[in-house]
Amino acid sequence: MPLTDDQIAEIAELRAHPQPTLRATAPGMEKHLYLAHDVLDHGFVRVVDYMGDDSAIVQAARVSYGAGTKKSRDDSGLIRYLMRHWHSTPFEMCEIKLHVKLPVFVARQWIRHRTANVNEYSARYSILDREFYIPAPEHLAAQSTVNNQGRGDVLEGDEAARVLEILKADSTRAYDSYEAMLSQDGQQGLARELARMNLPANIYTQWYWKVDLHNLFHFLRLRADAHAQYEIRIYAETICRIVADWVPAAYAAFEDYRLGGATLSGKALECVKRKLAGEAVTQETSGMSKGEWREFEALLGQTPR
Amino acid sequence: MPLTDDQIAEIAELRAHPQPTLRATAPGMEKHLYLAHDVLDHGFVRVVDYMGDDSAIVQAARVSYGAGTKKSRDDSGLIRYLMRHWHSTPFEMCEIKLHVKLPVFVARQWIRHRTANVNEYSARYSILDREFYIPAPEHLAAQSTVNNQGRGDVLEGDEAARVLEILKADSTRAYDSYEAMLSQDGQQGLARELARMNLPANIYTQWYWKVDLHNLFHFLRLRADAHAQYEIRIYAETICRIVADWVPAAYAAFEDYRLGGATLSGKALECVKRKLAGEAVTQETSGMSKGEWREFEALLGQTPR
Amino acid sequence: MPLTDDQIAEIAELRAHPQPTLRATAPGMEKHLYLAHDVLDHGFVRVVDYMGDDSAIVQAARVSYGAGTKKSRDDSGLIRYLMRHWHSTPFEMCEIKLHVKLPVFVARQWIRHRTANVNEYSARYSILDREFYIPAPEHLAAQSTVNNQGRGDVLEGDEAARVLEILKADSTRAYDSYEAMLSQDGQQGLARELARMNLPANIYTQWYWKVDLHNLFHFLRLRADAHAQYEIRIYAETICRIVADWVPAAYAAFEDYRLGGATLSGKALECVKRKLAGEAVTQETSGMSKGEWREFEALLGQTPR
Amino acid sequence: MPLTDDQIAEIAELRAHPQPTLRATAPGMEKHLYLAHDVLDHGFVRVVDYMGDDSAIVQAARVSYGAGTKKSRDDSGLIRYLMRHWHSTPFEMCEIKLHVKLPVFVARQWIRHRTANVNEYSARYSILDREFYIPAPEHLAAQSTVNNQGRGDVLEGDEAARVLEILKADSTRAYDSYEAMLSQDGQQGLARELARMNLPANIYTQWYWKVDLHNLFHFLRLRADAHAQYEIRIYAETICRIVADWVPAAYAAFEDYRLGGATLSGKALECVKRKLAGEAVTQETSGMSKGEWREFEALLGQTPR
Repeated sequence: MPLTDDQIAEIAELRAHPQPTLRATAPGMEKHLYLAHDVLDHGFVRVVDYMGDDSAIVQAARVSYGAGTKKSRDDSGLIRYLMRHWHSTPFEMCEIKLHVKLPVFVARQWIRHRTANVNEYSARYSILDREFYIPAPEHLAAQSTVNNQGRGDVLEGDEAARVLEILKADSTRAYDSYEAMLSQDGQQGLARELARMNLPANIYTQWYWKVDLHNLFHFLRLRADAHAQYEIRIYAETICRIVADWVPAAYAAFEDYRLGGATLSGKALECVKRKLAGEAVTQETSGMSKGEWREFEALLGQTPR
Repeated sequence: MPLTDDQIAEIAELRAHPQPTLRATAPGMEKHLYLAHDVLDHGFVRVVDYMGDDSAIVQAARVSYGAGTKKSRDDSGLIRYLMRHWHSTPFEMCEIKLHVKLPVFVARQWIRHRTANVNEYSARYSILDREFYIPAPEHLAAQSTVNNQGRGDVLEGDEAARVLEILKADSTRAYDSYEAMLSQDGQQGLARELARMNLPANIYTQWYWKVDLHNLFHFLRLRADAHAQYEIRIYAETICRIVADWVPAAYAAFEDYRLGGATLSGKALECVKRKLAGEAVTQETSGMSKGEWREFEALLGQTPR
Repeated sequence: MPLTDDQIAEIAELRAHPQPTLRATAPGMEKHLYLAHDVLDHGFVRVVDYMGDDSAIVQAARVSYGAGTKKSRDDSGLIRYLMRHWHSTPFEMCEIKLHVKLPVFVARQWIRHRTANVNEYSARYSILDREFYIPAPEHLAAQSTVNNQGRGDVLEGDEAARVLEILKADSTRAYDSYEAMLSQDGQQGLARELARMNLPANIYTQWYWKVDLHNLFHFLRLRADAHAQYEIRIYAETICRIVADWVPAAYAAFEDYRLGGATLSGKALECVKRKLAGEAVTQETSGMSKGEWREFEALLGQTPR
Repeated sequence: MPLTDDQIAEIAELRAHPQPTLRATAPGMEKHLYLAHDVLDHGFVRVVDYMGDDSAIVQAARVSYGAGTKKSRDDSGLIRYLMRHWHSTPFEMCEIKLHVKLPVFVARQWIRHRTANVNEYSARYSILDREFYIPAPEHLAAQSTVNNQGRGDVLEGDEAARVLEILKADSTRAYDSYEAMLSQDGQQGLARELARMNLPANIYTQWYWKVDLHNLFHFLRLRADAHAQYEIRIYAETICRIVADWVPAAYAAFEDYRLGGATLSGKALECVKRKLAGEAVTQETSGMSKGEWREFEALLGQTPR
């Protein structure tokens, strides 16, 4: 349970006093505000603020396209059209601010998405808590033998036990050392900005992360993908559920066109046409490399991947 | 008066139905929401949405610096500290969305600020209105004789009359031609995306512009500056007044450190020290060029610029 | 012919003195350096500088993925893999700087791509030349009757003649007025920053535009697309040919995966599978709207669009 | 010595074959290309590529301001003018690509500068080397007692020895564990993307980092500042020396206006004027807080900080 009693009380207080506003409000989002969605063993995602809703997307599109659009299309159809044709600017008109607690190695992947605003807890200024990510047994996976950048089977028995033992023991020792170096008991105490270097990448950090809906969708497409590392994917999936409550029409379009969709190359498109015309296309006649052909067949569900 | 009756009714409707929200609200901003602030002869600035308030800046800073900051400093002092030391990320946690109507030549300057989200009215898709910026007589200025990029005295008499006459006549003619080319009366009508090329840069366009507070301050510092062209400065000054109501503490810090402040070079700083030590520094002994020295003297108010 | 004799001499001079460098050089690009590729009636695209080549993309990918990649895959295969899997950062390691002369209404579309560096000729500071885009007769198109944002048939006969007459006469008049207002002959002369507002959107401007290869591909995908307005597409196509000479492997991957490829929604992908399984899918049973179904059929080449 | 023999041979090979180019070349930069500048105990900075030189800045400014600028001002004076008046876009026309090896906790600070392109070594894909930053004794500083975010005196004697002992032992143990978990000797071996979480923040990583000169100056102003943490400042200082060789005029302007300069608030400026007029201003009569007044006095060199 990642929240302290103080934090729970603070959240209750924040949720106790609705204020009137003239801004667009998203009822589906109000119910999430401030509440912590648990992720991993000590992490969470909390919505701290949001701007806009499905209508804000439509409204921005109509500034661009003028009044004519008003009659011809309902909101959800217009949102699908915008998504299908890569009209990204109307989606940028919505904004979300999240408070996220996450292991450092997840934060390091996350921050590669540069088009966002971030305020991270400073271990130069303050002391980090003794909280480390230790994978649940079902997520302790072996290195994949076919993909350098992936996981294989779940570890079992002694090997799993040994890994958990190492992760726990090393975390404990690293944090004990951190405290010992910082201590001002009978000594000066090492500067925080130096002591932090002893802490491993499974320690938890936290940040405020603010991003517009277009860039959030880009993040979610990459990080909620089956090939993303589990430990960041679980954050992305949590955020997906929140976004589905916030902007249901935009999320449905995103799900169909991005998460559930696929990009075909010119060669792949040509092969689809030839197959539909009844031709028996093979890798050799496809013009694709073996790797591409394997991915193509998997996409069409004709060969298990 | 830049708004139609329909628009006025729409704004009244939008302002008539406050909704409860759990988000941070800024009472000073609620009073501005949706209302049009007139700018130039047909332009306006309207706040369409906002996220955050002074407390959101403080809250983000405290995520970074930890609980220790809570006791030692009041909010406004912390905000001044952040501004003074160029800690920009907490200011990025506030966001504003404006609806702006503005002449095209102003829009072309404005868009150079790239860190913002924009949805502009599309003259490819829709037909522009017959609305042109014609300067008020007191803003009809001559070319500066000392600054290539500036204005001199206000034009007077015949010359002013001639300029106004030209601007009005050419605008009218350009728009008449635009309509004539678009017309489908007895002809096919030229494509909108082509016809628009005949319209001059004083025609009005409009857009939704969304930006975070840090980048907005950067825009305002450059565009509310005395050297900015009047026609964009008047928009910046209008936005300044809105921001002062939205985040009063942040705006006060911005006013003191950015709008009212100045950057001294190493050489200029050295000259200040020498002057304070009683030395009679001259341009020749300052190490500065004539242009720099002139700006330096003007800054210290010792020689009228 | 858009260049003056002075400019031609300057380019010859720039091309006359190769210097030795230890940097990666792209022979295919050296031959383009500084030369003007004519676009439209007075415009051009010139390569002013570039950084990197195909190998620079591969090298950056190998920093990320370590030495292991070296043996397993040739450069061109790796570049295709990166493009297919949306690994965009290696493509960001190449950079190009262009000098572009273009009509203002094209510049206004172009600038919406924000992730680039721009220095535009300042009509606040300097006086623009008397050069206007007048479409060739074969590009004088009527408004599309099916697409608000598109062109229909080419205008013919009297209508075409009338349009050309208007565009020429109005451009001439607007520029005459611009000169009359600026003139300091017997009058003060209006400030340049004001006089420019009388100039129509078909006047030419110019800028230096610097962008990384990933963002350039994004620009080219949207602007070299058949739905882009002809007047910007012709610039994009010119740049495509330059990029093909600069980074041939990356451009080939871009052509196959982006220009020639297509994105299918989850619904569309499902329909492809059903069709391949022999089912006769119709719009009614597809789950798609009429518009989506029309685009889907066109993509598979089964119904002419 | 951070480079292997293979790497040294590779660099020698890269430096052995100059190619002719028509691009702008900076002789001061050619001498740095590919060579590693040692930083900290195992880190380095290497220039991998660059675009532009001082003339490229001037050239871009002259696109904006037209031919008139050519006569009135020499290049270095124009560059100083641009820097003084915050004209940032001409500086964006130069670009640099660095290969940097650095401890993870330094990389985490560095990456907060978002306007850059990055390709980092992937510990998901590859195995990190056993290289850890262990501070030299003279950089083992105590926590500052006056500044939460700073260092005090250097640790001495037993305390210093204890800290070094801890850092070395914990690094060794963490890496031993990393290897033990990865090992496929008699076991499956944990996935790399999981095993990496055991590694502390003083392990070295490496990346390609590409940035334009304007954003690089912004980075250097913040990170070469006396208040920056030593371990990132030493990288910034190394880059400063490289940039001084690359664009000497731009670097000199940066040094005077940014590194050596200071920003005064409106209040501070007023106090300078009052002092110059002979008034004995005190904190009480200054309108500044105690903290601001302390910084102001330190800036004028009248009270040691």
